[in-house]
Amino acid sequence: MTDRILDYLRRTPADGPRLVVDLDVVERNYSAFAHALPDTRVFYAVKANPAPEILNLLASLGSSFDCASVVEIEQVLATGAGADRVSFGNTIKKERDIARAFELGVRLFAVDCVAEVEKIARVAPGSRVFCRILCDGAGAEWPLSKKFGCAPSMAPDVLEQAQILGLTAYGVSFHVGSQQGNVQAWDSALATAAGIFREMAERGITLSMVNMGGGFPAKYLRAMPGVPAYGEAIFNALRTHFGNQLPETIIEPGRGMVGDAGMIEAEVVLVSKKAETDEIRWVYLDIGKFHGLAETMDEAIRYPIRTNRDGDAKAPCVLAGPTCDSVDVLYEKTPYDLPVSLSIGDKVLIEACGAYTTTYSTIGFNGFPPLASVVI
Amino acid sequence: MTDRILDYLRRTPADGPRLVVDLDVVERNYSAFAHALPDTRVFYAVKANPAPEILNLLASLGSSFDCASVVEIEQVLATGAGADRVSFGNTIKKERDIARAFELGVRLFAVDCVAEVEKIARVAPGSRVFCRILCDGAGAEWPLSKKFGCAPSMAPDVLEQAQILGLTAYGVSFHVGSQQGNVQAWDSALATAAGIFREMAERGITLSMVNMGGGFPAKYLRAMPGVPAYGEAIFNALRTHFGNQLPETIIEPGRGMVGDAGMIEAEVVLVSKKAETDEIRWVYLDIGKFHGLAETMDEAIRYPIRTNRDGDAKAPCVLAGPTCDSVDVLYEKTPYDLPVSLSIGDKVLIEACGAYTTTYSTIGFNGFPPLASVVI
Repeated sequence: MTDRILDYLRRTPADGPRLVVDLDVVERNYSAFAHALPDTRVFYAVKANPAPEILNLLASLGSSFDCASVVEIEQVLATGAGADRVSFGNTIKKERDIARAFELGVRLFAVDCVAEVEKIARVAPGSRVFCRILCDGAGAEWPLSKKFGCAPSMAPDVLEQAQILGLTAYGVSFHVGSQQGNVQAWDSALATAAGIFREMAERGITLSMVNMGGGFPAKYLRAMPGVPAYGEAIFNALRTHFGNQLPETIIEPGRGMVGDAGMIEAEVVLVSKKAETDEIRWVYLDIGKFHGLAETMDEAIRYPIRTNRDGDAKAPCVLAGPTCDSVDVLYEKTPYDLPVSLSIGDKVLIEACGAYTTTYSTIGFNGFPPLASVVI
Repeated sequence: MTDRILDYLRRTPADGPRLVVDLDVVERNYSAFAHALPDTRVFYAVKANPAPEILNLLASLGSSFDCASVVEIEQVLATGAGADRVSFGNTIKKERDIARAFELGVRLFAVDCVAEVEKIARVAPGSRVFCRILCDGAGAEWPLSKKFGCAPSMAPDVLEQAQILGLTAYGVSFHVGSQQGNVQAWDSALATAAGIFREMAERGITLSMVNMGGGFPAKYLRAMPGVPAYGEAIFNALRTHFGNQLPETIIEPGRGMVGDAGMIEAEVVLVSKKAETDEIRWVYLDIGKFHGLAETMDEAIRYPIRTNRDGDAKAPCVLAGPTCDSVDVLYEKTPYDLPVSLSIGDKVLIEACGAYTTTYSTIGFNGFPPLASVVI
């Protein structure tokens, strides 16, 4: 974690949990993606963290943006970035939201069925659409369900219908699953995408673009490959499946762009045991599932945690949040090793919290305010 | 569902999902609790729905309030109810929050360990404390973990320590699990509580109160016993275990007070299939897990849903929310029967949404605003 964040926390003590994001790390991550895949456009997944300072920085660095809603599109346009740098990447859109995006200048839309194509044809005529296909997500720590995308066999019909209705059938997208640890995960999806390109060519329609989605990991407790390893594997897969006719390509990092740029400072509220004879302690923090750490759901994401007593002996504990909700437990099935000396009132630092924390926070469950956030 | 809500929705069409809560139903529920257990004080669990109109109504009806935080205490005091009608029921409290509650006049606090007793003794001298004990939660649709409460064998030591430190060891609390369908669930917990009363008497300390918690169900799809059945079973259990020396008693209904008083109006955004050969449709609404329907987590709560096409043939579908998040699926393991004719743009009414919806809503995940709420 960055000295800048530690410095900031020391200089500005505060009550209550707070996220601090270091823009230098975001800039470093953007550069890593740009260098690893120099011919690929980066569309930052705004939903990961839409803080204006982050959007402004990425806009100034030349990033494009993957938006899930009209509000996110407006947040991006507020940076001064043009609508040509926006993809409306949600496959589930109200027709009036598509119309509003079109009004704002957006011309690139995700679809995964004919009904969505029809909406776009009605209110965003002439736009480019890409069809999202299902992908098995093997190897991801947060695998995706079938919620987004259609079977690859259905994609050519969806794209052909777009062309028939006056849209531009522009390409194919997929997502290999969030926090994807296997750099080869893109290979089979790119093979499938290349097959759809060929099928469309046989139908007389030339596709241009492959949107290779997100999935690039942040560094939590488990070691992960670096961005260059992803770049190399993806480039090799592109060459394997598209040969010399490489399509335009897009990636949509969110977690990989901002995850390790943020750190949450929290406080120990209580340390207790449930019975005199219990071996395991419960440690309660002033932040939990409902105020930023939602991704501990099913203990999926395991955040690194630092304390001022890390030199002391450690023992496993159940780690929980502060709300009157029994679901608000962070790590229980696999208890978390923390110093035995950890005490009420101690501050703890939770690392790699830049993505999917502020936005997942409830508006005020139990009367606790949403997660505070500072960008430095 | 109430005609008042249906009338309101007809008269005031609006864009986007919204919760409408009918105060008449809340009043009816309060009366049902007051009649079923006439000697028991009702402490409404504010976290279920802290809308000012609901708190004002309940304050005027004579209710007391179970609060999870200083903000909730302030919300209750804003109704004009005195601090003697407040219980700070969270067992996990910062010492400075206890101090603030004490300053505001609160004198009743939950504990489940000696460390929490010590905080209260330091900053809320002379207050009453009750010790929460663990309860197995069998029969609950949303069973509780071990997060709150200590083993019953530990409770006498916790309470004795309170007395030693100048507090009043006031009683015992437990929670039989949320959405508890078994009216007998209170029996074994009351037996345990009576045992702690006897043990304390042997130590020369007379306990006064049993806080019997919440757990009273709302009516979702599955039929549940009515409030009178709970009242009768609880009264019988009290007589069995406390004989003629009935303690003061408290209940803390949240879901049971407001759950069935609210209805969410939502809109169908997309209906699609993932492959031409799929039998099952996906129906996407403009509300999901992150904007009010968090309690569909693990498909725990199954909301009744009405449409304008309920006379038509029905077929199972996967029901999902509108965000770019694969977790945002409401019912998939057990698909939901909805009319085959259900179409994009149709409104749907989701019943029994008065509790744990607005407060669980994220502050704006994916750029979608928090759940709108109207109280009529």
